[in-house]
Amino acid sequence: MNVMIDYLLRAENVLNKINELASISDDPACVTRTFGTVAFQQGSALIQRWMQTAGLQTRVDAIGNVRGRLTSSIAGAKTFVIASHMDTVVNAGKFDGPLGVIMGLDLLEQLRQSGKALPFHLELIAFSDEEGVRFHTTYLGSKVVAGSFDTSLLAKKDESGTALSEVIQAIGGGIDQLPADAIAPDDWLGYVEIHIEQGPVLYERNVPVAVVTAIAGQKRVEIKFRGMAGHAGTVPMDMRQDALCAAAEFILEVERFGNATKQNLVATVGKLNVVNAASNVIPGDVHCSLDVRSNDETVLASAYQTLQLTCYAIGEKRGVPVTWNLIQETDPAACDILLTELLAKSINESGYELIDLVSGAGHDGVPISQVAPVCMLFVRCFKGISHNPLEDVEVSDMAATLQVADRFINHLIDNFLSFRPQED
Amino acid sequence: MNVMIDYLLRAENVLNKINELASISDDPACVTRTFGTVAFQQGSALIQRWMQTAGLQTRVDAIGNVRGRLTSSIAGAKTFVIASHMDTVVNAGKFDGPLGVIMGLDLLEQLRQSGKALPFHLELIAFSDEEGVRFHTTYLGSKVVAGSFDTSLLAKKDESGTALSEVIQAIGGGIDQLPADAIAPDDWLGYVEIHIEQGPVLYERNVPVAVVTAIAGQKRVEIKFRGMAGHAGTVPMDMRQDALCAAAEFILEVERFGNATKQNLVATVGKLNVVNAASNVIPGDVHCSLDVRSNDETVLASAYQTLQLTCYAIGEKRGVPVTWNLIQETDPAACDILLTELLAKSINESGYELIDLVSGAGHDGVPISQVAPVCMLFVRCFKGISHNPLEDVEVSDMAATLQVADRFINHLIDNFLSFRPQED
Repeated sequence: MNVMIDYLLRAENVLNKINELASISDDPACVTRTFGTVAFQQGSALIQRWMQTAGLQTRVDAIGNVRGRLTSSIAGAKTFVIASHMDTVVNAGKFDGPLGVIMGLDLLEQLRQSGKALPFHLELIAFSDEEGVRFHTTYLGSKVVAGSFDTSLLAKKDESGTALSEVIQAIGGGIDQLPADAIAPDDWLGYVEIHIEQGPVLYERNVPVAVVTAIAGQKRVEIKFRGMAGHAGTVPMDMRQDALCAAAEFILEVERFGNATKQNLVATVGKLNVVNAASNVIPGDVHCSLDVRSNDETVLASAYQTLQLTCYAIGEKRGVPVTWNLIQETDPAACDILLTELLAKSINESGYELIDLVSGAGHDGVPISQVAPVCMLFVRCFKGISHNPLEDVEVSDMAATLQVADRFINHLIDNFLSFRPQED
Repeated sequence: MNVMIDYLLRAENVLNKINELASISDDPACVTRTFGTVAFQQGSALIQRWMQTAGLQTRVDAIGNVRGRLTSSIAGAKTFVIASHMDTVVNAGKFDGPLGVIMGLDLLEQLRQSGKALPFHLELIAFSDEEGVRFHTTYLGSKVVAGSFDTSLLAKKDESGTALSEVIQAIGGGIDQLPADAIAPDDWLGYVEIHIEQGPVLYERNVPVAVVTAIAGQKRVEIKFRGMAGHAGTVPMDMRQDALCAAAEFILEVERFGNATKQNLVATVGKLNVVNAASNVIPGDVHCSLDVRSNDETVLASAYQTLQLTCYAIGEKRGVPVTWNLIQETDPAACDILLTELLAKSINESGYELIDLVSGAGHDGVPISQVAPVCMLFVRCFKGISHNPLEDVEVSDMAATLQVADRFINHLIDNFLSFRPQED
């Protein structure tokens, strides 16, 4: 059978499963399966049945991750993980998360059917909570696997007053079982995640799949401009301390700075609120957000400092004092060079143009990168749209991705001994 | 008695009455007397008693204006009106409106006591609704006096569902009496209003009182910028259509344009709303307001057109389509040259520096200017603050204003026959 037709058929099968999973939702009008809900548990059970059918040794761990293994017969074998998440945002698309889980399922099923001897264990994990919608947390599932779960979160409650610990008890297991579900640092061989890009680069450049070199670090700031409110008709232009004009100048400086360093930085003012706004009142108080991301820690730190100084200078010049409050930050997570090179080689051999992407969004690879070498494949999605029912991926792009991932896993298996010479 | 001490004592008396009126409020925590409320009616009754005590022939007209007259014995005498408004905004200052009413009361009381023969009738009017807070209208009181009351407003309801017609019935008189309360165009001699500046110019320039040459015309616009929402982490800078950046560029252009033509223009973006804002989402839809005012019709029309073209150009350049919607406009109202010259002469003779101001805020003189020559005096207020409990006026500035207004009225009386030679 023609190789590409084979991948297209496998991709059709993947899409069918994505659609079947998407039909399970807490809200019949859209796709919503947040951590631990009824629909979440139904989806989780479906994924576990699929893993069993595919011949994997399956279980649900303490945090509710669904895990399926193909084991190696070699004593002391390490574990290579293929994973993504199965929870969704509210009114989600069908592909964000499930695509990587179900492609991983297809890859392991093919591998098991091939009867190929494994020099390491392969484990497929459907993480239970990446989006963090219910408890305003992130990476609950992957942090348990990485051994970095923060038990202080257990008392946290959702909007209905249910504690995280109660949800864990209901869908996974005992709180005291959480540590046992980590993969010990010495047991990791590596980690790969397939995910939709959630951005427009591959769509614009007409390329189906790409490697991710890093997951961007992020700094999130709340800024307050304090000017002087006044009557829009009676205060002359040269006597104003207009907080919105100060914010506008800052917004354009953020954009200009972002454009000047666009290779490895994005900077966004997403929220802006004029306090006590009225069309005939000069804005006295304006609050806005700043979100800066980069794959490069130095670039991120420097951008943060430059934008802060720029903001203060604008405030100083205009007599509009500025309050600057850093409210969240994460460091960039670099993808593993050797694994990423192997992905790139697989893309080249499959005949696709090689594009390096930085992930501007966070992924489960971030906590895993603390304990294991990680790599990621991004799959083109329609116009870069995500977290939206319009989220879409072409079957042919899924086929291309399966082709690349197949090569990658087989290279990994075939060259296991030479893969990390420094470790031997 | 020293003349200035006399004016200071009169100003103290004016301030006492301002404080007494301010103590009547619908909200004990602040000054609020909107059209037709219980406190409004109590305030109206107090003003009427004051007018009676001052020896004026008083009445409440159909729209609730309190009116007091000193009549001339000359057959066919015209009427000169001294007026301001007695209603307030919510959480108001004490001076916006009442200052002009109570100063007018003092002026007419002095005039009556002087026994001077009047070549024209003098009428003091406390307008019932200038702020328009309750029915989102303006100038209800002065439009009745100008004969331009819009009866289509009668069915309009306030937040509690009470119609304007019901309020008029309760505080004034029959709806069918409204036309009879207009002063016929032929009966007008002129109109003067004393009002706080509500802006910072006199405070900054250290001058107590000034003439107003015109009341600015205004255009109010609602603008919508329609960009493309996207993930703040995944959409590269050069693939964005950020609606907030487009709005920011427009805001700075408005400011720049306003500064370039600051002699007779103010331009303000007071409201701005990012639709579905989130710190990690590139703004897709931004709505904002634009308020442009000028005393010069040509300047206003040209500014409006320039800013509209600028806005469209910004949208075009950025791929962020713009919707531009003019929602309100009023023409500039010029003050009468002869009356204004007489005010200026009175300021000069009183020894104060002469400053011409344009009123950026609307006043009752706007509808009156359609039927009669109008002029206005602006009194310095603390830092230009108004519509705020911090609104304040110095007693010495009130004394200076009484001095100027006294001269003005006496000039008017003494030179009545030569005042408008073209009318003889």
